[in-house]
This record gives sequence, structure tokens and C-alpha cells, in this order.
Amino acid sequence: MSQKPSLPKGMRDFGPLQMARRNYILDTIKTVFQKYGFMPIETPAMENLTTLTGKYGDEGDQLLFKVLNSGDFLSKTTEVDYKNGAKQMLRKVSEKGLKYDLTVPFARFVVMNQNDITLPFKRYQIQPVWRADRPQKGRYREFYQCDADVVGTDSLICEAEIVMMINEVFNILGFTDYSIKINHRAVLSGIAEAIGAQGKESDLFVAIDKLDKIGLDKVCDELSNRGLSNTSIESLKPILSLGGTFDQKISALKNILTESRAGSKGIAQLEEVVAYLSKLTSDKTHIELDTTLARGLSYYTGTIFEVKINNASIGSVSGGGRYDDLTGIFGLPDISGVGFSFGVDRLYDCLEELDLFKDEVLTFTEVLITHFDKPSQEYGLGVLAQLRNANIKSELYPDQAKPKKQFGYADKKGIPYTIAIGSDEVNSGQLTLKNMETGDQEKLTIEKIIEKIKKGR
Amino acid sequence: MSQKPSLPKGMRDFGPLQMARRNYILDTIKTVFQKYGFMPIETPAMENLTTLTGKYGDEGDQLLFKVLNSGDFLSKTTEVDYKNGAKQMLRKVSEKGLKYDLTVPFARFVVMNQNDITLPFKRYQIQPVWRADRPQKGRYREFYQCDADVVGTDSLICEAEIVMMINEVFNILGFTDYSIKINHRAVLSGIAEAIGAQGKESDLFVAIDKLDKIGLDKVCDELSNRGLSNTSIESLKPILSLGGTFDQKISALKNILTESRAGSKGIAQLEEVVAYLSKLTSDKTHIELDTTLARGLSYYTGTIFEVKINNASIGSVSGGGRYDDLTGIFGLPDISGVGFSFGVDRLYDCLEELDLFKDEVLTFTEVLITHFDKPSQEYGLGVLAQLRNANIKSELYPDQAKPKKQFGYADKKGIPYTIAIGSDEVNSGQLTLKNMETGDQEKLTIEKIIEKIKKGR
Repeated sequence: MSQKPSLPKGMRDFGPLQMARRNYILDTIKTVFQKYGFMPIETPAMENLTTLTGKYGDEGDQLLFKVLNSGDFLSKTTEVDYKNGAKQMLRKVSEKGLKYDLTVPFARFVVMNQNDITLPFKRYQIQPVWRADRPQKGRYREFYQCDADVVGTDSLICEAEIVMMINEVFNILGFTDYSIKINHRAVLSGIAEAIGAQGKESDLFVAIDKLDKIGLDKVCDELSNRGLSNTSIESLKPILSLGGTFDQKISALKNILTESRAGSKGIAQLEEVVAYLSKLTSDKTHIELDTTLARGLSYYTGTIFEVKINNASIGSVSGGGRYDDLTGIFGLPDISGVGFSFGVDRLYDCLEELDLFKDEVLTFTEVLITHFDKPSQEYGLGVLAQLRNANIKSELYPDQAKPKKQFGYADKKGIPYTIAIGSDEVNSGQLTLKNMETGDQEKLTIEKIIEKIKKGR
Repeated sequence: MSQKPSLPKGMRDFGPLQMARRNYILDTIKTVFQKYGFMPIETPAMENLTTLTGKYGDEGDQLLFKVLNSGDFLSKTTEVDYKNGAKQMLRKVSEKGLKYDLTVPFARFVVMNQNDITLPFKRYQIQPVWRADRPQKGRYREFYQCDADVVGTDSLICEAEIVMMINEVFNILGFTDYSIKINHRAVLSGIAEAIGAQGKESDLFVAIDKLDKIGLDKVCDELSNRGLSNTSIESLKPILSLGGTFDQKISALKNILTESRAGSKGIAQLEEVVAYLSKLTSDKTHIELDTTLARGLSYYTGTIFEVKINNASIGSVSGGGRYDDLTGIFGLPDISGVGFSFGVDRLYDCLEELDLFKDEVLTFTEVLITHFDKPSQEYGLGVLAQLRNANIKSELYPDQAKPKKQFGYADKKGIPYTIAIGSDEVNSGQLTLKNMETGDQEKLTIEKIIEKIKKGR
């Protein structure tokens, strides 16, 4: 009995084309990370549930994929547990879960390896994570995260380097119209103070973070519904409408937040980041102060980043920030760090939308050897060996088949050259090289062919 | 409350050193796979349990990690199910499992994508798999597999190319003393026929596969216990003791199996593989006919491979074979294929044991910039920008710290060069370059330093 196979919902296969493109993105990112002194680590897919639960809020706990204990998974349960339902049963039938992000496993890694690693520790990590979210367009239950963090220093040079890395990755990938938005947790606190909205901070931040999507009027409506006074809302409006360059915005903000200690500290730190950046590059065109940026406020305590490709339909493709106490929950307090993450799927979609993938990315095999009969196929094996000795990615069609089928294989696989071998070629040593794109053919020795292919790369 | 973190048993973190070494192995393998025309794919960590169960025998089913359904996982169960125990409950609380190998997901991929892929389809796949095995030295519950398969052709050229790829990977990694053992399912059937052991084939094969480990006498004892006649065992002995070159063994075997149709076919195919190999390379020193090789007989139907590093304590590091019907179970019959797999953990251990890892593999950052005060640190940012523009992997120590701490960082991270900057260096532009291995120091401009570092690579 055969079965019709399927994939679990929200899960994807990646074929060769997608893999080539994904690897191009990931290799670009890895190269830049390493240039900046970041080193790779990997953590297992599964973590103990004690490590994962309680770290992502109640909703996050719901979205964790839990792994059933091996063997008789009911052995620790009783009928009473069963009657009490899933929550009670869960504790006794499952001890492990799939990782939900790379940050919590990284914090665990730092704590468990604190005697082996040297602070400041700069690491990157590119691995899949799993979330039992409702799948929809662009949202999957398994997806790669691509994180870089520095822990063990509060130097704001790290923030400036993150901006540099984002710029460098985007330059290589070919993005030109993008914004690296930056804000600071203390600036947000300062704004709350300045408009007299203390005690209503999370209502304030949740609402203003939506400014981009819903506009100023709706943000004000929401703030009013959330109980902010009209006075507060009126004082907020000019802050949300701040325009001009980075420096102009900073000056305006300084006046507004002059009374707030937190606000002044936040502004000073943002100025310091930009001062470092000025020493690292003359190109600061992409960095933008955004006082409405309020992501990840449950863990970020300093700077906050978010990157948007302005000419693509997808919004944020990267984000991050500074946190004061990543590892405290695992018993290692007072380790400051700053990190950010590239959304690999979103970068992929943006590159596709803006037609920025280069064709070269897709070339695997460079030459296919085709043949008319058994003796020419056997002769082709020697040709194949010469091509590969010259480090040319090459294949010989393995079966006896009609030329049409063999050339069709080259065509479908996107192989740019074919070498046709028949009895003429075997006798003369002059092989027929065909450029599959132009259709041009010429008779050449294998040495000349190797030269030509290497030149054309 | 902080918690002491731990890893689930059988799971591992990989730190930067291990990652560098693993990536070196995997990059070597990928480069060779691509040179031979193989293309990468990836499949998700989770598969439907209907895809996985029944494919690996009863033991394999036990070792699958099962993922609990999301939400109220008990909703489809009744008290009767609970009372009937884990087996019945499992069907109703779990629909997905973690992949156990890369072969079954590959078969599913081929069937689901049969309209998009071109046969013969050459793919490689490097991903973790999970098995709820009892952990022990060298055996983990999460480990990488690294497979290459060609499906959709029965050409024995593919077998010859597998031997070539193994040779090429091993040459690059630096292994010299290894054997690529080859056998054929039909030769094994022929041997069973020749010694009159039909009907006792699996007893015969299981026992002779142990020859390497337990020796001829114990194999014979086991065969006797398993009910093989003394006549059979006596006729088997000379076959198991065959010596000499590949060609000598083939001649001897031809005489022994002359009456067996299967045996003769198997021999002819092995001869064909070696004939192809002769056209591809002059080096056939590593290939060895091993009539006791009997792995994976429940799925291999043609050639069988196994690779051993002879001068390392670990045995097999790679294996594979030809199968006639990989995808039949998913409704696509008659697709012949041949594949093999590198054991990444075992290759790692062998390279370590034989001290074959090169130091270069481990160099991430090439230069660390150290500084004596805030102004020299800020000057260092410009130096950093110049180094990175020259594509030199570099870092600036982010904090104000004592020289000892900064140099200690370089030392522990294995950074080969440091550039020390103080007020003298800021004033003169002559920076102090130190070779961390030799301790040599010299004063040079940044341009000279860049030149020197690039030359020294």
C-alpha cells in the first residue's frame, strides 16, 4: 500500500534554487559577521522545557512545540492527572521542547560555558526555530533566525558596529533604499515623563509603535481609549511629528526632554553611537532617529533598532537592541549585551521582489558532457576527469539516451555549457562545445575548452 | 529566582572552535559534491508521523521523537484511550515527529516534487536528525547527516563517481590510510546459493558482517548456532578468507559463483564499476572488494559501500549503496538510485585523533586593535575602518581596559596580530603591530600593516 505523502502545515521543503539563493544570503551575512569578529555557535533543536517556558510570555508558552517523552510516556501520569486535563498532563508527558528563538538558548549557552568563553563574547548563530503559530502567507512554523550578539560589554561602539554590519550586508545584497531606524528605551521613558504619562508607559509605547501602520489620528484615538489625558496626547503630537535630519531631530528632542534624566541619558547615548559611526564611515545616510520605535520593550533596556526596506512591500527585515540582563534568569546577572537579527525569509522575499538575485547564484554544474553511444560515453569519462581536475563543476549524462533528453537535462538544470561527444570527436579529440544560452557551437580540444570556461566565469 | 540551566541528555552545544572545524569538514564535502553536479536541498525538521513510521523497523519507530499536538492535546482522547495505554494514546496526541534520517524525507521530497525535478536527480543534504537512542560516547540524540544520492538512473557510472567523491574529500581532509569497501547484494545472494544456505540468507549475512569485529572462528560458531550446516560453513570459509588484489578476488569469486545467476550478475556489475573508475582515475589503491560487507540489506539491492579509516580507532565513517525502490512506498515505483552518507561526527573525531585539523581553520579575527585611553580608542575606529575596507577580519577592544586584559582577549580568541595605539601612535601614525605568536613588535603605518597581514595569510 502506498501513501500520498504530505508536509505538516507551516513546514517547507527547500529545493536547489531556493537553497542557492538562501545560501547566497546566509554566506553574505556570515562573511560580514566574521569580518567584524563574530564567531559561530550552534545549540540543539531541543531544550529542556524548564529552559524555555516563562521566557516568551503566556502566548509564547502556548506556541512552543513540545516533545513527548520517550518510551511509555504515560508512566508518570495517573487517571487523576488525565481527568485534570492537558496542562497537568503536559508536565508529566513532556520534558523537552523545540527552540522558539536563538536568544534564550544563547543565554543558556553563555551561562553554561561562562568559564570557557572570553568576555566580551561576540557570537553569531544561524539556525531554524519553531513556533506553533497559525501559518499564513510569509509566516511559517519552522524558519531560520540569523542573530549576532555581543555580551559582556556596555560599550556603544557595539551599536555603531551593528549599523556598519547592516550597511555592509545590504550593500553586498544590492539594497539601496532602506532605513536603519534607531531609538532608545530611555528616550521613550523620557517622552512618557515629558507628556505626563508616567504609569501609562506600556499603553503609550504599544500605541505609538503603530504610527507607521495606522497614522497619527488613529494612534491618538487609541491613546485616548487607553486612558491618556488630552493634555498628554496634545504634548505628544509634536514629538511624533519630529522631522529633519538625525541631528535636527536630536536638537528638538533635547529641548523637549530637557527635564527628564532618563531622556537626556538616552539622547546622549544615541549621540555617542552616531559619533562612533562617524569615525567608522562617511556614509550615515541610512540611519534615522525614530522616536516611535518601541519594539521588544520587555527585554530591551537601551538602544533599539529596526531596519526597513523602503521600496519593498515587506516592512521590517532586521531588528535588535541592547539588554542589560540577558543571563540573569539563568543565574549570571549583570551581563550587558546588544544584538540584532536578520529575517532570512523576509530578505529573500525582498530580493526576489526587487529582482536583485544574480543569475550566477544559481549555477551549480558548469558543464554537461553528452554522448551518442557507449564508446563516446566512455571516452567522456576521461574528459570529465580532466574538467574536474581543473576544478570545473561538471557532469556526464549517466545513461544512454537521445540527445534531446540529454540537452533537456542541461537546460532544466541551468547548465551553461555542454560538450557533445560522438565518434568524430573521439577520433579527432576536437570536442563540440555548446553555449546553451546563445546556442553557439565550436570544436575545441579539451584544453581550450577548460581555458574558455574558466575565462567566462 | 534563577535556575541552573542544563541541556537535554544526548544533546550538544557547538562552540566557536568546534563550529570552525565542523564547517571546515562540511565546506570540503559541499565543494566536492557540487563539483560532481549534486545540488543542495533541505527538508523540515518535522514530518508527519505517517511519513516516518514503519520505515525504520519496530526499533526505529520506538526511537522517533514525537511532537505533541498543539493546544489541548487531549481533546481527541477518551478515558478508554488513556486506560489502554501509551500506544493508543500516541495516535491521538501526536501527529508529527522529528526526522530520523535524511533518506525517507528525501524520498517524500522526490515524490511530492516529481513534476518539478529533472531525472536523474542528484541531490545532497546536510542536516541534523534526531533519535531517542540511549546516549553514549560518540552517540548523540541529535547529529548531522550528510547525504548525497542520485535517483532516476541505474547507471553504474554513479557508483564510480561515489568512489571518486570519497577519494577527493579524503585527500583534501588529509586522510591517507583508508579503505573504500565495496560489495554487491547479488554477490551475497550468490554466496548463499553457492554454499547451499538458501532460506538462511539473513542469518548468514548478519553473521558474516561481524567478521571484522569477532573473527572467523566466532562467525562460524554463530552460523552453526543459527542453524547453518557444517557443509555450508566449510564451503564459506575460503570465500571469507579471499585475499589479494581486487582483480584477484574477482577471479576467485567468479569460479566460486559460476553456477549462480545472481552471483555472476553481481560480479559483472562490480567489474563494470571498476572499469568506469579506471577511466576516471589512475588511483584505485583505496577500493577493496569485501565479500563480508552486508550492511543495510533491508533496502540496498545492488552495490554496497563502506569506508574505514584504517589508522584511527573509529571504524566506519561513510557508507551507502544502491536501492531499487526508494520512493515506491510513497506511490512512485521503479526509481532506482544510489547514495551514500558521510558521518560528520566520526570524521571530526578521526581528524582530531590523527591531528589533521589545520590551525588556519580556527582563525576568525585576524587583528585586534588595543588602546591606552579614550582618544587612542577613537583613533582606533578609523584604523578599524581601514582594515575592514581591506577585507581584514578585525576588531577594536570595545571597553577601556588594562593592556593585559586586552591582550588576554586576543590571546584567548587566538587572534594572530594586535595593533597597539597610544598617544605616540596617534601623533606619529606609526602603529605598533605585534605578532602574538612570536611576540615580535614593529612600528608601521596602517598601509604597511595591511600589506603585511595580507602577505602573511
